[in-house]
Amino acid sequence: MAVRMRIDGAAADQVPALDRGLAYGDGLFESIRFVGAVAPLWLRHMRRLSESCERLRIPAPDAAQLWREALEVTLGMPQAVVRITVTRGVGARGYALPASPRPMRVVAASAPPQVADSAYAQGVRMRVCDIRLAEQPLLAGMKHLNRLEQVLARAEWSDPAIAEGVLCDSHGRVISATMANLFAVVDGVLLTPALDRCGVAGVARAEVLATYPQTQVGELMLDTLLGANEIFLSSSVRGILPVHSLCERSYAPGALTRQLQLHWHNLGFSMEQAE
Amino acid sequence: MAVRMRIDGAAADQVPALDRGLAYGDGLFESIRFVGAVAPLWLRHMRRLSESCERLRIPAPDAAQLWREALEVTLGMPQAVVRITVTRGVGARGYALPASPRPMRVVAASAPPQVADSAYAQGVRMRVCDIRLAEQPLLAGMKHLNRLEQVLARAEWSDPAIAEGVLCDSHGRVISATMANLFAVVDGVLLTPALDRCGVAGVARAEVLATYPQTQVGELMLDTLLGANEIFLSSSVRGILPVHSLCERSYAPGALTRQLQLHWHNLGFSMEQAE
Repeated sequence: MAVRMRIDGAAADQVPALDRGLAYGDGLFESIRFVGAVAPLWLRHMRRLSESCERLRIPAPDAAQLWREALEVTLGMPQAVVRITVTRGVGARGYALPASPRPMRVVAASAPPQVADSAYAQGVRMRVCDIRLAEQPLLAGMKHLNRLEQVLARAEWSDPAIAEGVLCDSHGRVISATMANLFAVVDGVLLTPALDRCGVAGVARAEVLATYPQTQVGELMLDTLLGANEIFLSSSVRGILPVHSLCERSYAPGALTRQLQLHWHNLGFSMEQAE
Repeated sequence: MAVRMRIDGAAADQVPALDRGLAYGDGLFESIRFVGAVAPLWLRHMRRLSESCERLRIPAPDAAQLWREALEVTLGMPQAVVRITVTRGVGARGYALPASPRPMRVVAASAPPQVADSAYAQGVRMRVCDIRLAEQPLLAGMKHLNRLEQVLARAEWSDPAIAEGVLCDSHGRVISATMANLFAVVDGVLLTPALDRCGVAGVARAEVLATYPQTQVGELMLDTLLGANEIFLSSSVRGILPVHSLCERSYAPGALTRQLQLHWHNLGFSMEQAE
């Protein structure tokens, strides 16, 4: 799969080996769905990136510059995912912040993942991961480059029929899926986990919360999730995916899931694959 | 500061932007002190690297090959620190492990950090960090590339008179310093924290444990640490560093600290700076 890239604005495919993004995972990323030259959730991605840069004390890149570079790498692609990676740049050995940081940015376009139509229509199969997410409030919510927990979680299964895994914290609270946020309708109320101790606060999740402000954000125990009427995943890359099975229980996509899928469509996303 | 490098065996200073080490911190590293062409703790570093590769399911690099590359990059340097970074290599987008991983290795030599003679003689000043380490047993002990907690911890202070910070977990248990392990003599017993929930199991710590097998590995609360008779840090790069002050308390380097410093010297380490 060809990936087109800009690194600090220039066409390139390599980064300095001494970059702190590689040395320490000292940086952030965004995965942004493009439909032609349109990225419906661009502003939300830029807001999260800028807020996370501030939390990590990395000088934030210029959003207008990122936009130009994203258009360059997606040029001619009917559908694309643009990954923007921002690191603290090259530094001397050691954890201390460089006195004069020179952040690095990588803007890379690739083809979107293949998602079967049936996944949107009937839903996907999920499992519960064994790994428990560690709780670190100072990193919670951010899409930072320290993603070994997600790598280990995704390595727990290889059955291609299973699309995703539920991640819980050490107290059995549901947090998210490995690469998506999670919502459940319980007794007619839309719930999604709070992400102030661990997890990534997805841009698609923010869009759902803005669209359906009655959503309750709080604690969601695994047992409550299993007893839900509807479960769906939100992903800025994949959109709204119903969950049709989890732990031998079956779920049917409900009215709220369909309503949010329609909203997604109306935002300008077409989840069909590029020809 | 010039850094000499080998990347997958070749002289180079850049890595693929799509490497999973950058994308997810999906890899490990070792920081190995060389005195000329001698690395007294080499075998311990290789053992940890190979055990951690197994835990992360990354094919381990060949130790003999790493040794040849380390000698190449340190050639002519009287004192050096060799950082070996091993990643899972380039992968397609997504957390799933590549079906045929091609790990990448970076072997880079740099000059050792400057440590004043007084630091070894009288000790260093420490503070207690505000950040609490998250508990993730599946990652604990390894020197993996997910080091944002250490970056945030080290960013808590800028006073150059403070050499290190004590890191505790969320239960107030002492775990380590930001870039060293920690030992305390309490009532005549040498204690060091267990690292099965968080922290990095240092190679220098392993050397201390092997040298002084009476050491008790277990829970060390901050209050107990503050009441210790001796405190010292162990680092494969810096050696054995006494702590002379912490939270307005003063400590004098004691007999055990001196004994382990002597052991360090006898291993072949000379902690004087290269001319």
